[in-house]
Parts: sequence; C-alpha cells; structure tokens
Amino acid sequence: MSLALDPTAQDLLFREARTARTFTAEPVSDEQVRAIYDLVKYGPTAFNQSPLRITLIRSAEARERLLPHLAEGNRPKSAQAPLVAILSADNEFHEELPQLVPQAPALKDMFSERAVREQNAGLNAALQAAYFIIGVRAAGLAAGPMTGFDPAGVQKEFLDDDHTPLMIVNIGRPGESAWHPERSPRLDFEQVVTVL
Amino acid sequence: MSLALDPTAQDLLFREARTARTFTAEPVSDEQVRAIYDLVKYGPTAFNQSPLRITLIRSAEARERLLPHLAEGNRPKSAQAPLVAILSADNEFHEELPQLVPQAPALKDMFSERAVREQNAGLNAALQAAYFIIGVRAAGLAAGPMTGFDPAGVQKEFLDDDHTPLMIVNIGRPGESAWHPERSPRLDFEQVVTVL
Repeated sequence: MSLALDPTAQDLLFREARTARTFTAEPVSDEQVRAIYDLVKYGPTAFNQSPLRITLIRSAEARERLLPHLAEGNRPKSAQAPLVAILSADNEFHEELPQLVPQAPALKDMFSERAVREQNAGLNAALQAAYFIIGVRAAGLAAGPMTGFDPAGVQKEFLDDDHTPLMIVNIGRPGESAWHPERSPRLDFEQVVTVL
Repeated sequence: MSLALDPTAQDLLFREARTARTFTAEPVSDEQVRAIYDLVKYGPTAFNQSPLRITLIRSAEARERLLPHLAEGNRPKSAQAPLVAILSADNEFHEELPQLVPQAPALKDMFSERAVREQNAGLNAALQAAYFIIGVRAAGLAAGPMTGFDPAGVQKEFLDDDHTPLMIVNIGRPGESAWHPERSPRLDFEQVVTVL
C-alpha cells in the first residue's frame, strides 16, 4: 500500500528525519521561520483556535538567560543551535477568535472559563507544536525538540501567566554525531491499533 | 524563501488540505491505516514515549455505540465517514519503554508516578495525533478531527481507566460540500512570533 505523498517527502519529514542534538554554525534566519510558519499555520486546530505562540531566542543575551533553565544535558544543545524556539500555549487565545472565526462572533463566549481555555490551549498548541516540527523539517532543517527544562523558570523568564511553555526546539543543520546511528524502535501496528 | 519540501507535498499536507465534514462511500482499509502508521510512527516524542493508541471504529455495531457520545452536530459526520478513529493517550506507556528505549533500561523508573505519566502521555500523544492527521493526508485522504464528544462516555464505552481519549478523527475521501469554500483566516506571523 503506497501513500500519495512522494517517497522523497516521506523521507524528509519522517523516515530519514531525526532529532538533532548537535548543529553546524549555519544561521537560521527569521525569514526561514516565517516560511515555516506560513506553511504550518494551516494545520487544523479545534475551532481554528490556533493557540501556539513562538518565542525565538536569537540574541546572545536571551540565550544566556535560557540556558540555566534547561536540564543540564540539554544545555550544550541549545548553546550550540543556531536558533532556539520556545513553544507555548496562549491560554487567552479566545481573544483572537473573532479574527480567526469571523462567521461565529459568539464563539468566544464558549471559552469564558479559564480552566476550559487551558485544557483547549494545551491540546491544540501541542498539535501545532507537532506541525511546527514537521515544518522545520520541510524547510530542510533539523529540529531538536526538548521537554527537559524548568517550565516555571522559563515562563517567569520569558513569558507571562497567560502563556504555558510546552517545549523548546533547537533548530539548524545537523552537526557531527547529531544523532545515535541506530534509530530507536517504534511500536508495532498491533500494539497501537485496535480494530472494533 | 522557499522550503525544501516540494510545493505538491506542501499542498497535499497543509495548503490545500482541509478538515472534511462529509465523505464519499469509498472504503478506507486497515492496510491504508497501516501505511499511515508506518510513516507517522517516526514522528518524535519525548524519550520515544510513543503513547498514542488508535481505536478504529469499523463495525456497524461499534459505530452505533459511538454516535450517542458525540456532540449532536458531529454525529452525521461520523455516521457517514468510511472509517472513524478514536485517538487516545496511554497513561501506562512506561510499560513499553524497555522495548522503545532498549539502551536505557532504567528510564521506566522516571515515570513511576501516575500524574507524571498522565502529563507526559497527554502532550506526547497530542504530538502523535497531529502526525496522524498529517499521515491521513499523506495517504491522499481527508481527516476530520473532532474534540466535540463526551470524553468520559467514550472512555467508558471503548477504552479503560488507563487510556484518555484525545480526539476522534473521521477518515475518507471528501464528499459533497466537505468544507466551507472559504478557509478560515490564520494569525499573522507577528501575532504569533516574538524575537528576543
């Protein structure tokens, strides 16, 4: 059973792509991030909520502020990556719903409770984080997503109470020994899928 | 700034792909789902946790049991879709870590607390749910992801206490008026991205 997506694209996005832990010095420009965003912004979210927010750590000063909040094993990765992105969920995403869903002005009222917004923002920003990782690969770059960091520390340093950090993504061209030569195994279809 | 991913693939996965609410009668086989899984299983998760589980609603009997748990507006969509998938997070994913990360047998102990597992499973299964949606599109099919359902009801009917339903995805070829002709707007780059 072959897929509609051509094999080169399958390799670029999934089969050959790997999580990088080292990077070359080749810079990643804001224009590249713009091209990535202009592709992955179309990925679906519930009611077009689009709660993902992206903080690019570009200056040396911002990077110095970030590193202490990372798990020790992750610091060299983010110290070396040409660009680092903090992906967060905007728990006040409902403020943008009139722009995002102009045909349903009352939609915003469905999200008057903060707890409901947090639950929605967490799930839908995670979907968008995955689209973003795919988008980095679509740009011919390697992504190094990480959850090993102090969320409260990162939130206090770079965000505010309304933005919950989900993950940090190192971005660049893969460097030397960017990954283990052998890929970790995946679960079998039968372990994952139940047919009723 | 052009992407490495060719424009046809960009259209298939993001730019032309839309969330479908009607479907043709053309069946979707288990082999197609297997091809989708064999692609998207490579999408990255933290520590290769791979907590996504997929329940395919194939029989008429299973579908009859599903429909009452859906928001009323979603029932016709899942009644008509050739195949419906319940995507859930396995909160006991740590049991599979020795298979998934054979080089780190102690990794399982990092996840001895259920609350930690639930948090990890929720985030990482959401990433995999997004990869799955991309995979459905990579197969040339349309996905109709939905969060409008009763999670407790679906969990009780089809899953168990260890599996938290995340979303339900209708799968098939798009039918008549499968989507609004006009696509909902997305946020501008400047609304989403902050450069520090």
